[in-house]
Amino acid sequence: MGAAPILRVCLTTALIPTFEVREYVAVVIDILRATTSFCVAMARGASEIVPVRSLQECRRYGRQGYLTAAERGAQKVPGFHFGNSPLEFLEADLRGKKLAFTTTNGTRALWAVRNAREVVAGAFVNMSVLLDFLRQQAQPVLLVCAGWKDHVNIEDTLFAGAVATHLEGEFRIADDATLIAMSLYQQAERRKRYYIQHSAHFDRLLALGMQKDVKYALHRDLHPVLPYYQNGILINALQESHV
Amino acid sequence: MGAAPILRVCLTTALIPTFEVREYVAVVIDILRATTSFCVAMARGASEIVPVRSLQECRRYGRQGYLTAAERGAQKVPGFHFGNSPLEFLEADLRGKKLAFTTTNGTRALWAVRNAREVVAGAFVNMSVLLDFLRQQAQPVLLVCAGWKDHVNIEDTLFAGAVATHLEGEFRIADDATLIAMSLYQQAERRKRYYIQHSAHFDRLLALGMQKDVKYALHRDLHPVLPYYQNGILINALQESHV
Repeated sequence: MGAAPILRVCLTTALIPTFEVREYVAVVIDILRATTSFCVAMARGASEIVPVRSLQECRRYGRQGYLTAAERGAQKVPGFHFGNSPLEFLEADLRGKKLAFTTTNGTRALWAVRNAREVVAGAFVNMSVLLDFLRQQAQPVLLVCAGWKDHVNIEDTLFAGAVATHLEGEFRIADDATLIAMSLYQQAERRKRYYIQHSAHFDRLLALGMQKDVKYALHRDLHPVLPYYQNGILINALQESHV
Repeated sequence: MGAAPILRVCLTTALIPTFEVREYVAVVIDILRATTSFCVAMARGASEIVPVRSLQECRRYGRQGYLTAAERGAQKVPGFHFGNSPLEFLEADLRGKKLAFTTTNGTRALWAVRNAREVVAGAFVNMSVLLDFLRQQAQPVLLVCAGWKDHVNIEDTLFAGAVATHLEGEFRIADDATLIAMSLYQQAERRKRYYIQHSAHFDRLLALGMQKDVKYALHRDLHPVLPYYQNGILINALQESHV
């Protein structure tokens, strides 16, 4: 029996260069809202999601027949099929559809860890599936909080803390960032919505009328899907989709 | 009466470039052990401390008659008068002496915020003096955790959370990193040593036989000094020194 693999937390996209991402299975976390929306779109049947960094690139995919989703500064960009609200995708029938997706933080974080050993997307809505995947891999894990522009945020850190708390014992907690995330999760567990409501990003979303998105993003295990990133494309590693 | 000034937390030196440091009074925090040692050296009478980045530069100051302190990888570097242990300085008579000081994290963080509106050094050992200074300034505050080589650490985050918790109400908590630090502090308050003992840096120090340094660094208000950084030199802004 080998030693338990290590688990670490990267608290914001700006810190990704301080890790040797090649050594890890990277879990990209953007609870509000990109990774939550990836899960919903896959659960609604999307056959692939292409995260792209620019609006221009997203439009180019649109001209090739892809559905397009574009968000900047938390708002839907006019001229695209979708923004970045999980509820928009929940209402859509995406069976067999391909989707190009650009967001402020989540797609940027995916790009930044593209050279990791494996790359998946995590959110509360697919948490148990993610935990099972990480246990099966039994490789070093880097939980990558996308954050808000270069800054740390509560909701991604909270989720990283939840994952670390569930995997403690099976994985070796290897750094203080992970202990800090676990402390936040353990303190917030019974008051998750309280903590989220005090977050700066929540204020931004609230000001834009997105309370329902926030509430939705905090539900656990709604969608048994696992967005898996390979060759620039997210596919569902579980090969099944049903809402 | 103006609005309360903002208070933010930078969780590690690697994130300093994501802040406009010119807008803030910056508090550099390196609890284990640089900013703790700065306070002790000033309390023991040091008239100035010059933080330098290289061993070579430190030696150059030594040839000019300065006392020298040098630490790398938590250990004293041979050939210098001191390492980075607060207890070494506590035992020394430094009245009127000038000290050149190089460390892995703390001096690097000071250099990185040199263009801030004001720069001071904070630690548990001078916490109340620091709080009074920040209240008197009534300017935006950036609490800069030095961290451990680009990575977040528990002890600096804990201290940032303590400062933010004491200033809440008088300052406006402006970001999620601050909320996370406050959550850690509030959860750890009664178990501070427990949390420190689970930190990665503590393990490093412990392995090197430095338990006494850790215990010492967690005591509050031992030294009524305020290391103030200007033109590359730290002086005691309180103009008094007595142990």
